[in-house]
Amino acid sequence: MVQSNRTMKAAVFVEPGRIVLTEKPVPRVGPRDALLRVTTTTICGTDVHILKGEYPVAPGLTVGHEPVGVIEELGDAVQGYEVGQRVIAGAITPCGQCYPCLGGAQAQCGGKAMGGWRLGNTIDGCQAEYVLIPDATANLAPIPDGLTDEQVLMCPDIMSTGFGGAESGRIKIGDTVAVFAQGPIGLCATVGAKLSGATRILTVDGVPERLAMSRALGADLTINYTERDPVEAILQATGGRGVDVAIEALGTQATFESCLRVLRPGGTLSSLGVYSGKLTLPLDAFAAGLGDHTIVTTLCPGGKERMRRLMNVLASTRADLRPLVTHRFPLDRIEEAYELFANQRDGVLKIAITP
Amino acid sequence: MVQSNRTMKAAVFVEPGRIVLTEKPVPRVGPRDALLRVTTTTICGTDVHILKGEYPVAPGLTVGHEPVGVIEELGDAVQGYEVGQRVIAGAITPCGQCYPCLGGAQAQCGGKAMGGWRLGNTIDGCQAEYVLIPDATANLAPIPDGLTDEQVLMCPDIMSTGFGGAESGRIKIGDTVAVFAQGPIGLCATVGAKLSGATRILTVDGVPERLAMSRALGADLTINYTERDPVEAILQATGGRGVDVAIEALGTQATFESCLRVLRPGGTLSSLGVYSGKLTLPLDAFAAGLGDHTIVTTLCPGGKERMRRLMNVLASTRADLRPLVTHRFPLDRIEEAYELFANQRDGVLKIAITP
Amino acid sequence: MVQSNRTMKAAVFVEPGRIVLTEKPVPRVGPRDALLRVTTTTICGTDVHILKGEYPVAPGLTVGHEPVGVIEELGDAVQGYEVGQRVIAGAITPCGQCYPCLGGAQAQCGGKAMGGWRLGNTIDGCQAEYVLIPDATANLAPIPDGLTDEQVLMCPDIMSTGFGGAESGRIKIGDTVAVFAQGPIGLCATVGAKLSGATRILTVDGVPERLAMSRALGADLTINYTERDPVEAILQATGGRGVDVAIEALGTQATFESCLRVLRPGGTLSSLGVYSGKLTLPLDAFAAGLGDHTIVTTLCPGGKERMRRLMNVLASTRADLRPLVTHRFPLDRIEEAYELFANQRDGVLKIAITP
Amino acid sequence: MVQSNRTMKAAVFVEPGRIVLTEKPVPRVGPRDALLRVTTTTICGTDVHILKGEYPVAPGLTVGHEPVGVIEELGDAVQGYEVGQRVIAGAITPCGQCYPCLGGAQAQCGGKAMGGWRLGNTIDGCQAEYVLIPDATANLAPIPDGLTDEQVLMCPDIMSTGFGGAESGRIKIGDTVAVFAQGPIGLCATVGAKLSGATRILTVDGVPERLAMSRALGADLTINYTERDPVEAILQATGGRGVDVAIEALGTQATFESCLRVLRPGGTLSSLGVYSGKLTLPLDAFAAGLGDHTIVTTLCPGGKERMRRLMNVLASTRADLRPLVTHRFPLDRIEEAYELFANQRDGVLKIAITP
Repeated sequence: MVQSNRTMKAAVFVEPGRIVLTEKPVPRVGPRDALLRVTTTTICGTDVHILKGEYPVAPGLTVGHEPVGVIEELGDAVQGYEVGQRVIAGAITPCGQCYPCLGGAQAQCGGKAMGGWRLGNTIDGCQAEYVLIPDATANLAPIPDGLTDEQVLMCPDIMSTGFGGAESGRIKIGDTVAVFAQGPIGLCATVGAKLSGATRILTVDGVPERLAMSRALGADLTINYTERDPVEAILQATGGRGVDVAIEALGTQATFESCLRVLRPGGTLSSLGVYSGKLTLPLDAFAAGLGDHTIVTTLCPGGKERMRRLMNVLASTRADLRPLVTHRFPLDRIEEAYELFANQRDGVLKIAITP
Repeated sequence: MVQSNRTMKAAVFVEPGRIVLTEKPVPRVGPRDALLRVTTTTICGTDVHILKGEYPVAPGLTVGHEPVGVIEELGDAVQGYEVGQRVIAGAITPCGQCYPCLGGAQAQCGGKAMGGWRLGNTIDGCQAEYVLIPDATANLAPIPDGLTDEQVLMCPDIMSTGFGGAESGRIKIGDTVAVFAQGPIGLCATVGAKLSGATRILTVDGVPERLAMSRALGADLTINYTERDPVEAILQATGGRGVDVAIEALGTQATFESCLRVLRPGGTLSSLGVYSGKLTLPLDAFAAGLGDHTIVTTLCPGGKERMRRLMNVLASTRADLRPLVTHRFPLDRIEEAYELFANQRDGVLKIAITP
Repeated sequence: MVQSNRTMKAAVFVEPGRIVLTEKPVPRVGPRDALLRVTTTTICGTDVHILKGEYPVAPGLTVGHEPVGVIEELGDAVQGYEVGQRVIAGAITPCGQCYPCLGGAQAQCGGKAMGGWRLGNTIDGCQAEYVLIPDATANLAPIPDGLTDEQVLMCPDIMSTGFGGAESGRIKIGDTVAVFAQGPIGLCATVGAKLSGATRILTVDGVPERLAMSRALGADLTINYTERDPVEAILQATGGRGVDVAIEALGTQATFESCLRVLRPGGTLSSLGVYSGKLTLPLDAFAAGLGDHTIVTTLCPGGKERMRRLMNVLASTRADLRPLVTHRFPLDRIEEAYELFANQRDGVLKIAITP
Repeated sequence: MVQSNRTMKAAVFVEPGRIVLTEKPVPRVGPRDALLRVTTTTICGTDVHILKGEYPVAPGLTVGHEPVGVIEELGDAVQGYEVGQRVIAGAITPCGQCYPCLGGAQAQCGGKAMGGWRLGNTIDGCQAEYVLIPDATANLAPIPDGLTDEQVLMCPDIMSTGFGGAESGRIKIGDTVAVFAQGPIGLCATVGAKLSGATRILTVDGVPERLAMSRALGADLTINYTERDPVEAILQATGGRGVDVAIEALGTQATFESCLRVLRPGGTLSSLGVYSGKLTLPLDAFAAGLGDHTIVTTLCPGGKERMRRLMNVLASTRADLRPLVTHRFPLDRIEEAYELFANQRDGVLKIAITP
């Protein structure tokens, strides 16, 4: 069970501003773990927060939480898998056996906020040649035949989070939905809203390429906020009625507030963004607390059942998220990839990293 | 169908600081209305906001939205009632027939925020000898035999709102619940939480009498915030775990924020307060938007089905809210009652006003 | 307000086996009614039950409950509409103001089973030149510009019922769903399942044309039960796992039982059929009552908010149900249309009847 | 980790009609298991089905699924417990890590119907001196100080199942609820209904002692079906309206059917019974499938979070189920206890068995 002293390449947080590719030992497999040989992974907006020091992690930690790979080794207590299987694991890896997990709050595993987010946060992540998946029985999801690495690369985080925004909004057939920000997560929220039965989807961003992608993925009306006020545009498009569900996919005061301003009384604000600084509720739009509003936040749902379902969506061709992969880099050049992604250059949405 | 030119006494908003008892014509009954002879009513915290000019209404408006009375006259299109029946109507009087009502958002009737609140807000209210109930078919709820005016006086607003806070929190059997503020609505939220299966209820207030009442009505632990920090006390009492549901029943930044601070990841903040000024979300307690939190606001549910259910609770003796009526005044002395209630003198909770 | 003694043509139930076109007075408008000039209507499977005497109605009753028309006259208490507007009304016309309606059980209006179904059941229906819509304020739904009569003709019953089957099943993104029977309602259930996020839809029927239509509308796999056992086929296609939701759209012991047999433990059987004779639960498939199964039945949701939402689905082009209209007849030849429809000749799905 | 060849006493199924106390080896602990020294256990109605051969288990199996005990030994992969802790485990022991568990269907663990029921069904149970708890991390629930063995003895099955019946019925504040059969599970359903906010609870049984207990635990009206027709009595008591939720707690055609007959349109039948023979849906009461009825079955929810919550209910004194323990036997005399329980002699409800 003990790994030899092999080493591997891994992208490691050193200090604010520096994530570097370095050599580390290949991790040793505990009884409930699985070791994956990573075949494809990607960089998330959260990784950029880590890079910038806005979200603190321990120096020396391998970053990355979106693994696609092949099972290299299985812990003694892990059952139902074989070495060599192609699998993914979610960004959130719940244990399935603690009080919150058994109560349905798997992303808050262990009872601490964000407790289910371990990869690249509290334990080594997957921007590396190998990654250890904790509680592997609950987290390894075999990839159905016919799906490529790049197709399922969206499942561990982007798609699970974006769809989660639509699901937490409890969208019903015939709903009108607004989505603020059309980066990778916002685009997935748009797709999730469409799959949930929204019949009118209004999306907002400032980048024409993203709005074009938004339209291609299901938006009925796209609004470039650099050209017109999105609140006004949405209220006008809905005849003053507002939307049933507004999804926030950026994490700023402006987008959060705009969501409330376009929401009908009794509507739901489904928030996906990571906020910093200060977040204020505009009391006029919030009807001073009397508008029967719901505000719900969603951390990327994880676990193998979630991954199975998301891969089913792709296998069924109900959604095709391949266009989100705009760039490809080998792991060797991951520092370059970070530079590109952090600066949002060259129309980048998601970068496939291959060790 | 046309009322003679009879007049009646009514408490009328004149200008900020002045609600006066005056003479007004008895209202004329339209086809969908019912005229009630008011036998008991009460003053709400919202009426005090109106008095102070913090919540604007039209000068000359009769205030009050908690009617208990006897049917005096019925419009032509109103069916299923008889003159002389004892009835109540909710503070919120939904039409039942508009898009939001049919979609389940009855308190937001008509699609405007708080649209269902008409009595004493957009039409004359019930601190008067007579009151017109709009859309009477949807709103008149006959009082079961054996219940007194004072018993059912809590149904139109206090009990419906407080219970609504518990219901919107989706309390489950075995939940731990905190309720911030134990005024009339907070006390009803405590009762509602108990009826919903909460097995540990922690309540917070600064008035010893209210905390004593809170214990009598179901609180397991009461915390006087003038003596100890309620957030600390609740976290300690729950072993650091926090509560499943936190109910805000005051409408201040401090209580709203404390609710979030005692909430477990994945928990629900059920907000009942009317906020003014500025409302800020503390990002640490809000887990930067990643804690799977739900924040839900509830405007007093109305309509006759709601009133029927609440009166059933009283008739079943599952809850006895009579202790909430601490004072009694005739309508003639309502200005005095306002003075007492607005200044929270003499341990006042609710005042029964009898025309 | 009183209609002159004009007469109109109407299809009237005379006795089992006989629905005949006859002359009747144009109805008189009461205060809460609206009179529609019917422009298009259709025949439902339930009408055939009426024709055959299997579902009893009063002799002399005008049948039909799927009206598309133009407002001819409005009762005094009806607000928010204009004579000349194009509208539809649902097959179910809830009052919106009784206890069950206010409690959310609008199809069971008045508290009697199926109480919301009035048109062509307890009051005159719409297979006529004119029809009276009761509680018009709650039931008239203006047709958005750009939608034809034939497009919205599916909304009052077929689409509302079929979609209701998907909604009551609480289909989630990634679910596998089976639909038994692909007549008009089953086909709409297939569309509703797809709009709700089902990523694998398996449908069953015995008519090749219906299965072809099913595939065109969203089924991933169609099973002709005359060629292979559908239970076996579905279990095989799901690797023995069964489906998350099974929708029954016929009303027979065989289809009901098959639904249970393909359902995974914890799954939901959503039943739309009208059963006659005897209905037995197979205890093996029902796990003797220990399988955490849910069986839910749905009567066509009505009311103008429902109709508004369904028309939005069509306006958004998320679904195109026009192919369901396979035949067209003038009202004058409705007896012929009944003959065709009752005998399911000539590949008939729905017949547009135009007065 | 390997247990010495110690032996223990255990009640073992031999053949239909014979459960005998015998000597067996103390089980050996695997990595995910815990060994409990049983301090108290009890006999369930299901055990009587096993005894009679109506529910088949493997000859030689130790029966019993309601363990209260002390941790004797822990598997290597089990964390967060200590030898010597007092704990219970649910009758249902979900793994927490398979697809159904992660999807919320824990009682159907593994995807087979009743898959979560392992103790005394597919693996050795707890009517013995020692019992092995599988997936111990997900299933061991420490007993709060101050609760006795007999108090928590109801949690593993009776209370979890009975409360589950109330919960699956989605009882709301103000609901009227009927419970058919007031054996141990029915009595717990009555308590669960009261805790969920039912304001009128009507219970049915034929044994006066059980009806007296029912009244003591929360029933508002008890009906002895040997004296009057319960369907008639309930319809009369509700003014013909019927009940919102009917709970079936016996498992017979008669009680199942009566539940449907007293249910209002739109109501929920929550079924807990284990049925045998044939189960038929009366189509008149079922409104031919058009009554918007829901029928939901519930297998005893398990796992440590569930047990924690149930013990909280007891610790809070919201419910006191000690009166359900009517008899006490040492393990040595368990065959006698079976004889008493199977024949329902001497007013027996539950028997505490102490090894």
